[in-house]
Amino acid sequence: MADGKTDRTVGDIGEFALIERLVSDTPTSPAIEVGPGDDAAVIGLSDGRVVACVDVLVEGTHFRRDWSNAIDVGRRIAAASLSDINAMGAQCSSLLVGLVAPGDLAGAWIMEAAAGLKEEAASAGAVLIGGDTTQGDSIVFSVTALGSLDGRAPVTRGGAQPGDRVAVCGRLGWAAAGLAVLGRGFRSPKVLVDAHRFPVIDYTCGPRAAAAGATAMIDISDGLIADVGHIAAASNVAIDLDSTTLEVAEPLQAAAAAYNVDPKIWMLTGGDDHALVACLPEGVELPDGFLEIGRIREGAAQVTVDGSEPEWLEGPGGFTHFA
Amino acid sequence: MADGKTDRTVGDIGEFALIERLVSDTPTSPAIEVGPGDDAAVIGLSDGRVVACVDVLVEGTHFRRDWSNAIDVGRRIAAASLSDINAMGAQCSSLLVGLVAPGDLAGAWIMEAAAGLKEEAASAGAVLIGGDTTQGDSIVFSVTALGSLDGRAPVTRGGAQPGDRVAVCGRLGWAAAGLAVLGRGFRSPKVLVDAHRFPVIDYTCGPRAAAAGATAMIDISDGLIADVGHIAAASNVAIDLDSTTLEVAEPLQAAAAAYNVDPKIWMLTGGDDHALVACLPEGVELPDGFLEIGRIREGAAQVTVDGSEPEWLEGPGGFTHFA
Repeated sequence: MADGKTDRTVGDIGEFALIERLVSDTPTSPAIEVGPGDDAAVIGLSDGRVVACVDVLVEGTHFRRDWSNAIDVGRRIAAASLSDINAMGAQCSSLLVGLVAPGDLAGAWIMEAAAGLKEEAASAGAVLIGGDTTQGDSIVFSVTALGSLDGRAPVTRGGAQPGDRVAVCGRLGWAAAGLAVLGRGFRSPKVLVDAHRFPVIDYTCGPRAAAAGATAMIDISDGLIADVGHIAAASNVAIDLDSTTLEVAEPLQAAAAAYNVDPKIWMLTGGDDHALVACLPEGVELPDGFLEIGRIREGAAQVTVDGSEPEWLEGPGGFTHFA
Repeated sequence: MADGKTDRTVGDIGEFALIERLVSDTPTSPAIEVGPGDDAAVIGLSDGRVVACVDVLVEGTHFRRDWSNAIDVGRRIAAASLSDINAMGAQCSSLLVGLVAPGDLAGAWIMEAAAGLKEEAASAGAVLIGGDTTQGDSIVFSVTALGSLDGRAPVTRGGAQPGDRVAVCGRLGWAAAGLAVLGRGFRSPKVLVDAHRFPVIDYTCGPRAAAAGATAMIDISDGLIADVGHIAAASNVAIDLDSTTLEVAEPLQAAAAAYNVDPKIWMLTGGDDHALVACLPEGVELPDGFLEIGRIREGAAQVTVDGSEPEWLEGPGGFTHFA
C-alpha cells in the first residue's frame, strides 16, 4: 500500500485512528445492528444462542514476519478462531480483534494483516465487527470469533461413542512439512511453504458434519494425535487411528524423500492445517469431503495408531502425552 | 495462595493446565449450553442478539504490578470491557479472556488476577466462559465481553439530540486523583488510591438509563471531556458541560488542596472510573443515581465547559482534541 495514509508507524497513527482504519470497510449486513465504532457491536443470531471463542497469537511463537507476509499472518490469526467455531458445527458470523503493536511498526503492515484477516473471515462468511488496539513491546493478536448454530446442537469434544467412525476433512501435515522446508532454508515445494504461510480451510465442513450427526469434533491445531487425544479424554474413549488410510499427498512424499523422513509423522503430529476431525456413528454416511481414518473403541482417554501406542513419536519436536 | 498448585511459574504449569485452572470454577447457568474447555462456548441470549466488545490491556500502560495487586488488576481489566457493554444499555452475561504471560511469572499471580476478574464479572452478573493463554515477553490481557439487550434497542453514541440533558452515573476523577497521590509517592487518602486500583461500577445503570429512554451513552475511560466528545462527534451535536453541577467529593477536595490543583480538572479529564454518561430527552425524569451535568446544543462535534472551549485543559497530561 502506498496511499500515503499507511506509510507511517503505529505510533504516528495513534490508537483511535488505527482501529478506525482497521474496521473501516466492514460490510453492512442485516444481522449487524451496530457495527464497529461504538462501545460495543450488536449482532443478530439465528437461534438465540451465540458460539464464542478466543485465540491469542504472539509474534515469534505463532508467526514470524520474516517467513510470512502481513496478509498471510492475518489469514492465519483469523483461521485459528474461525476454525474453532467450525469445530462446534457452527457458522461463523463475526470477529473482534485485539491488537498490541510496537509504536515503530509500520502502519502498512497492520493494514495488510487486517486485509488478510478479513479475507479469511470472508471465506468463512464472517466480518470484523470491532476491536481494540494498544501499544506494547511485541505484536500480539487476540481474535474472538462468534457464530451461530442455526438450531443445531453444538458438537463438543465429549460425545464420541465406541463404534463411531473417525473421519477427517482437510489437509494433514502440510503446514508441518512447509515448516520443515523453511527450517532447512528452502522455499520449495511452494505448495508446502504456502500451506505453512496460511491454512486452506473449508468452513462448511463443520456445519455439514454436525448436520450429518457428528457425535464429537475438534480442529487439528496441535497435531492429529494430540488433538484427537482431547476427544479421547473428553469422551472417555479410546481412539485407534489406521495409518494405512492416510493418503500421503505428492508434495509431502517429495519433501519426505528429500529429507529422509516418514511423511506420516507430519500427518500424525503436524499442527496448523486446521483440518477437522469428526466422529460419526457407524451407520451414518460420511459427509462430502470426509475420509475415514480410525475408530472409536472402548477405553479411557487413549490414542493408538494401528493398535499400539505411538511411542515412536515421542521426543523433541514430536508427540507429548496429553493425559 | 499456598496450596502448592499455584506457587509455580506460568512456564512450569503450561498453557493447557493454566487455562483449565483459570476457568475451573465457572458457575453453571441455564444460559450456558457449553462452558469452558471445548473449542468454543455456547451461550443463550434473551432476544436473539448479542452485544460484544473487546479491550486489550498491557502491563506498564494499563496497570502496574508495583501499584496494584493481582486481584485489583483482574478487576480493572474485567471492568474495562464490562463497562462498554453497560454503555450500550445491555446486561453482561459472559467474558472470554486471552492472556499472554512471561514464562517466569508466578502462576499464583495469574490465578489471583483471574479471581479479581471473576469477582468483577460477578458484580456485573457475568461469568468467564472461555479463554486462551500463551507465553510472551510481557503481560497482555484481552477481555471480550458479551451481553444481552433483553429486547431493548442498543444505545449508541450517535443518538443525542439538541435539548437532551447530559447526566452522569458514577464517580468522576477519583482514579485520576488516586494516580496523582501514588505518583507523588503517597498511599493516602486511601479511598482515592483504592479508586485508582480498581473502579467501583454500578452495572445496572446502563440498562436503567436505556429503559428510561437514553438517546446516547458512553462510559468514561479516557476522561469526561474526551469521552463526551465521542458522543458530540457521533451525534453531530455540541455538548456544554456545567462545571457548577460537578460536586467535588471530600477526598478529592482534600487531595486537591494538598497538591494545590483544581479538583474539577480531575473530574473533567480523569479516566478509568468508568462512570456512565447518558443523554436523556428533556421531559424524561433522570433515572436513580444519575446527576445532570450539561446539555446537548445545536452544533458540530464540539464540547464546551460553561459555554466556552476548555483551552485551559490543553497540554501535557491534559485534554487532546478529539476531532
